[in-house]
Amino acid sequence: MSRVQGQVRIVGAGLLGTSIGLALSKLGLDVALASASERSQQLAIQYGAGRAAANGDDPVLVIVCVPPQLTAEIVAREISAFPEAVVTEVASVKGRIFEALKSANVDLTNFVGSHPMAGREKGGASAGRADLFIGRPWVIVPHPDANPEAIRTVSNLAHDLQATPFELGAADHDRAVALVSHLPQVISSLLAAQLSKAVQGDLNLAGQGLRDTTRIAASDPAMWTQILTSNAEQILPLLKTFEADLTAVISAFENSADSASEGRISRAIESGNQGVGLIPGKHGGSAKHYSLVTVLIDDKPGELARLLTEVGHIGVNLEDLKLEHSPGAQIGLVELYILPTVEEKLISDLVERGWRIA
Amino acid sequence: MSRVQGQVRIVGAGLLGTSIGLALSKLGLDVALASASERSQQLAIQYGAGRAAANGDDPVLVIVCVPPQLTAEIVAREISAFPEAVVTEVASVKGRIFEALKSANVDLTNFVGSHPMAGREKGGASAGRADLFIGRPWVIVPHPDANPEAIRTVSNLAHDLQATPFELGAADHDRAVALVSHLPQVISSLLAAQLSKAVQGDLNLAGQGLRDTTRIAASDPAMWTQILTSNAEQILPLLKTFEADLTAVISAFENSADSASEGRISRAIESGNQGVGLIPGKHGGSAKHYSLVTVLIDDKPGELARLLTEVGHIGVNLEDLKLEHSPGAQIGLVELYILPTVEEKLISDLVERGWRIA
Repeated sequence: MSRVQGQVRIVGAGLLGTSIGLALSKLGLDVALASASERSQQLAIQYGAGRAAANGDDPVLVIVCVPPQLTAEIVAREISAFPEAVVTEVASVKGRIFEALKSANVDLTNFVGSHPMAGREKGGASAGRADLFIGRPWVIVPHPDANPEAIRTVSNLAHDLQATPFELGAADHDRAVALVSHLPQVISSLLAAQLSKAVQGDLNLAGQGLRDTTRIAASDPAMWTQILTSNAEQILPLLKTFEADLTAVISAFENSADSASEGRISRAIESGNQGVGLIPGKHGGSAKHYSLVTVLIDDKPGELARLLTEVGHIGVNLEDLKLEHSPGAQIGLVELYILPTVEEKLISDLVERGWRIA
Repeated sequence: MSRVQGQVRIVGAGLLGTSIGLALSKLGLDVALASASERSQQLAIQYGAGRAAANGDDPVLVIVCVPPQLTAEIVAREISAFPEAVVTEVASVKGRIFEALKSANVDLTNFVGSHPMAGREKGGASAGRADLFIGRPWVIVPHPDANPEAIRTVSNLAHDLQATPFELGAADHDRAVALVSHLPQVISSLLAAQLSKAVQGDLNLAGQGLRDTTRIAASDPAMWTQILTSNAEQILPLLKTFEADLTAVISAFENSADSASEGRISRAIESGNQGVGLIPGKHGGSAKHYSLVTVLIDDKPGELARLLTEVGHIGVNLEDLKLEHSPGAQIGLVELYILPTVEEKLISDLVERGWRIA
């Protein structure tokens, strides 16, 4: 089934390590987990991401999934412990890690950096998902001394996780992620920070636009500080251009009555239209594989349990579930994600049982 | 079925007019549509949003759903044509419309402004959805001269559309939406605009974070220019504070090697965490105020229902629930959000009943 053949060792049992472990275990591979946190490792193992690493393990592939600032050190340790294995890591910034390994004179023949463009605003083993990488870009960052076989192994890993591999040099990678990932993170955090100044009650008016633009502002500060500071050189010019554009829009708002200013505000929105239009179409993502059935329930204790009990009686297994509920609303929306093959049956059976489908 | 009783006239067949018409028609009300665009009106009627307005119509309620800059003029026209009807509108900015009506000496006894906090980045009749308002805030903006019966009618309309009505004065409304809607729109547009400068291929690395932060940047420039310019006074100070925060972060990035700068970048991300935590979840409470208990359940039909039934027996009320389920994993993780005071009891009772807590 899998392209990768042999034992895989994963160091770190956070979101990425656990997700990779879940996906590879599902493919039947022997996954050995090694985490500095006993609690994370236990949860990841119970979740199904693999088994505990043991003496005598002989991995063909080691995947280092630790915080960015520890990555170079742990990669060096793993290369030394498993000199025959291909070693990769999944950190968000590449240049500094490679420089650190080079200057420590580590043998990099079997090392290839990589970076899955997938994540969640939640971290930790409990947030792990085998489908995290499906349809997502997976950047492979080779270097001149890398064994072509090592590059192929990491590419096989990306394919096994149903990601789309792209090869990029470290500098090109760091420039690209500054734009598509680091700039949005800083801007989203700054935007969400403005909410602290809200007058009491004003946030009750929050709609989906605010929620979407600030979702990633919930991300872990410790991890992001490491990422951002290690790519500051690439992020800085982007922040400055954003600042210049913002200053220009502010001056248009200061004179919003005159028609030239109105034109400048309009062009700012149009430029946003053009920019968002350049983002390539989604290559899938987990939700695409499921059908969504939205059920309206009364907001009272036991209603959700009653719904799910009946879904169980109908014999349908839930792939995912989301609750939508706004302050003060008398109803909640339960989003049931199911296999497309059972959608029709679920809807007709729920309607028959008196449930309201949105 | 509906709280509103009688004929309803909707002026304008864009996203909002069509969505309201679809929802009210679904409730069995007689909805008369009047749009300046014959094409939009035909599409909305075919879609099921109502019938064409006709001579002799006698509405109890008129809902004006036209572009912001036309709203005051059309409201005045409708008040004059249907002096017995309650008249409302759905524009995103309230102060200027009310001032325009006042200074035109329009009789505002039966007029109440309102603003559904719902929309899509797509506009037009074809984007209309009967469920657009379900669970969304619907701001009702009364004024001292308004007939209490008129306020009640608009509140009934919000309930009929399954929205949650909030009463706010015009100035308070305009301040609140500047923060929760207009600022995010400007920032998202500016962020998306940066993508035009991308090196070829870099956008292939786009992940969900970029897509979410720039989703609303696809919104209509003509409509948003009207909204933004008519609320410039409220938006301007927010943009300036954002600019000051951005400038401070930029100076931290310029000196990213020193630890003080690292601390400033970290605090910027932390401030974002705090801000996003203030966006109301269920019952208006912030998720931050709840304790999280994660339960491991077997991945088979009925297990989640069995868990929730037992949580009910234990007597604990769930504030929120999230399901973490990795495809292929033999277990799922159920995240139960509860009041901190019942956390200890819930954990001990669940463990006693044989549930596994992560």
